Amino acid sequence: MPVTLKNAYQGAVRCEYAVRGRVVARAMEAEAAGKKVVYCNIGNPQSFNQKPLTFARQVLALCAYPALMGSDLFPRDAKARASRYMDGMAGRSSGSYTHSAGIRQIREDVAAFITKRDKGAPCNVDDLFLTDGAGPGAQMLVRLLIRGPEDGMMVPVPRYPLYSALLDLVNGTRVDYFLDEANGWQFSREELEKSYAEARKKGINVRALVVVNPGNPTGQVMSKESQKGIVEFCATHDIVLIADEVYQENIWAPHRSFTSFKSVAHEMNKKLEIASLHSVSKGFFGECGRRGGYVEMSGFSQEVKDILYKMASVNLCSNVDGQVTVGVMCNPPIPGEESYELFNQERTEILESLRRRATIVGKALSGEGLECVVPEGALYAFPRVFLPPAFVQKYKANPDEAYCLELLDKTGVVVVPGAGFGQVEGTFHFRTTLLPPEKDLPDILGKVVDFHRDLLRRYA
Amino acid sequence: MPVTLKNAYQGAVRCEYAVRGRVVARAMEAEAAGKKVVYCNIGNPQSFNQKPLTFARQVLALCAYPALMGSDLFPRDAKARASRYMDGMAGRSSGSYTHSAGIRQIREDVAAFITKRDKGAPCNVDDLFLTDGAGPGAQMLVRLLIRGPEDGMMVPVPRYPLYSALLDLVNGTRVDYFLDEANGWQFSREELEKSYAEARKKGINVRALVVVNPGNPTGQVMSKESQKGIVEFCATHDIVLIADEVYQENIWAPHRSFTSFKSVAHEMNKKLEIASLHSVSKGFFGECGRRGGYVEMSGFSQEVKDILYKMASVNLCSNVDGQVTVGVMCNPPIPGEESYELFNQERTEILESLRRRATIVGKALSGEGLECVVPEGALYAFPRVFLPPAFVQKYKANPDEAYCLELLDKTGVVVVPGAGFGQVEGTFHFRTTLLPPEKDLPDILGKVVDFHRDLLRRYA
Repeated sequence: MPVTLKNAYQGAVRCEYAVRGRVVARAMEAEAAGKKVVYCNIGNPQSFNQKPLTFARQVLALCAYPALMGSDLFPRDAKARASRYMDGMAGRSSGSYTHSAGIRQIREDVAAFITKRDKGAPCNVDDLFLTDGAGPGAQMLVRLLIRGPEDGMMVPVPRYPLYSALLDLVNGTRVDYFLDEANGWQFSREELEKSYAEARKKGINVRALVVVNPGNPTGQVMSKESQKGIVEFCATHDIVLIADEVYQENIWAPHRSFTSFKSVAHEMNKKLEIASLHSVSKGFFGECGRRGGYVEMSGFSQEVKDILYKMASVNLCSNVDGQVTVGVMCNPPIPGEESYELFNQERTEILESLRRRATIVGKALSGEGLECVVPEGALYAFPRVFLPPAFVQKYKANPDEAYCLELLDKTGVVVVPGAGFGQVEGTFHFRTTLLPPEKDLPDILGKVVDFHRDLLRRYA
Repeated sequence: MPVTLKNAYQGAVRCEYAVRGRVVARAMEAEAAGKKVVYCNIGNPQSFNQKPLTFARQVLALCAYPALMGSDLFPRDAKARASRYMDGMAGRSSGSYTHSAGIRQIREDVAAFITKRDKGAPCNVDDLFLTDGAGPGAQMLVRLLIRGPEDGMMVPVPRYPLYSALLDLVNGTRVDYFLDEANGWQFSREELEKSYAEARKKGINVRALVVVNPGNPTGQVMSKESQKGIVEFCATHDIVLIADEVYQENIWAPHRSFTSFKSVAHEMNKKLEIASLHSVSKGFFGECGRRGGYVEMSGFSQEVKDILYKMASVNLCSNVDGQVTVGVMCNPPIPGEESYELFNQERTEILESLRRRATIVGKALSGEGLECVVPEGALYAFPRVFLPPAFVQKYKANPDEAYCLELLDKTGVVVVPGAGFGQVEGTFHFRTTLLPPEKDLPDILGKVVDFHRDLLRRYA
């Protein structure tokens, strides 16, 4: 019989990835029909003309077309870098499959980066797996740990929907824990314990805790105190910590800084299994299309890393251009090198502008019927939307999706309904990126605020 | 408790991917210790210095570093192509996420390629999903169809181990059907029916038939008669046909040519759900490291394609460099264009050399205690190895793995044991690629044959 929604694997039917859900589908239709659409649904910096890092693109071009090695269009350090990475490619070609965990030279660069960042907590090259963006790393972890509905993972609410989608795909159980909006979306140890105890009562084996820091969609950066609490929590219950740390370069609040969970555990002298994810898609690289990322498996046994290697080898290797971009991200030009000045200037421009935008967006989306925690980090704001009861009544099933669809129709601005991330019942939110260029932001934010005011009036 | 082999997901523990199994692990160790190793375990053409197609690499370099658009190092048609593909990228940047099914302009090129190839059977752009190589396409299909151990897929023996590994990962049932070695590894309708009937008797829902044509590891190219039989078989039992057609450009036997299953079904006027896989890793491109491929979902309902789209969107999109390479593969330079002559010359050199190598390898591996069907297509030979009873007795558990390990130790040549692909009980094989350069082949093959003769003598 033909394949249908009914006889397909239900985990696939059920899985939802809100960031590319119904609102985006309608936006693409509208765009195809000639409407101007502003995609604030997804952290896709270069779609808003964020400039790619010149050094990264030079190294990529040289690896793709080594005939350029003779050209004076490229600085010496870019050539040297491309040459070193090509030494790690079979036949010195970027067209060859690599080791399933990734090119050794690049994993060495990643290990050096982590060791330096974590001041003392060493990183082993054999703990690293280069992946096609952070997603496949998360997918391998979820697949490794979840045997069926009796196994669960603790996932924050609001959550980055990757984790809920992956849990659906393996038919696992999502164990929600809530972040505290009133407290700037911070964690509470109490809430973690409550959520864990409830899951255990239902007979669920809690296998891992997922933490996204800096937070997506919520933008909080965890205090070191909170991080210590989380490490203690995982150590106490002997569960894996999945640390989604892809926004580690995106810290905006002056009183915040990034500390990896691995270094916190190291400092506390706690033995823990921590899988840390990173990606070239975020930070100041914004190289989403390259699909480059890594997972560091610290504290896991060799036999478990061997399973991961087998899973990675099923698709042979991650793409080489993504791997090369990971290498450059972890080992950028340093002072004294030919490309340093330009690299540093490009980096600073991007990060400083994002820092300004975080405040602009956070503040603009606070006001009549809108309440926004100004993002301390990451690339999003997640304002709470106070919807008139008449509107909620009219669109009972999914008021915030109705809100986003209407916002799209009236303004062309695409944001993601809070329901896609999860939220306290009876509250409504949407997620927008911080990414439109500064010159366009006032206009875009103005349209959103005007739309909201108008809606409040219409449904008063 | 810590993650272990016992409490991890057993499908992941079980899954085996022989092409990168134990023999390769030992080879990598030997290589790290300074031994010269020849990797014939995997179809990785550029690792043997197969030349990448200049036009493809030029387009990639231009997309990576558009500053090169002003350089006279690039022909006009490469610049035009890069520019057209960049039109399809958000912000005209290869660093942006694309549509989850892939850049529209590239899917249009793929659709035009298929329509031309299949003379009359039209291809719909919306049936196409660009993927990171063919593997993730196969993975999505297996995930879509298999709900649990009660669902099965028919997979040939010998099989490309991707399909068995993916079935393990979703805890599905592999339904074996045997290819006939005595008949040049051809299919038999009778064997298909027998295998299907046995699975049904066990209560298994057979959801799909996997066909690899040209065959891997077996090298047969199906006759049109056989293909018609397979289409009829799938139509009769109303099951999905997964057509792995990644070797469609690799046809060596003069009396054979490639015909897609979709065009056969179209000609027979049979309504069928066919998923056809293709990749830039094989053919004459050999761009394995790029991880580019596509799956064409012909005959499936929109709701099923919507599920596939959701699954694709969980990792947002496939990598852009892989997508661009797919575009160039499907829309190469044509006569009259500036790059045509060079492209055609590079293409012909690669394919003619591979054609010669298919015969050289096939013939060399036939003789005393070795019997090889000369490959009609694809990139491998799969000789039968007659092992002395004393050797089989000594290595009871896995004689052909022991054989390959000893071959590695004595000669440095890495091949894959037949057991990794499946074989008739009591027979032994190995798979080798056809890829070592022609000048090195006699030496490599000589070493293998000498090793075999020596082993026959030692265990006589």
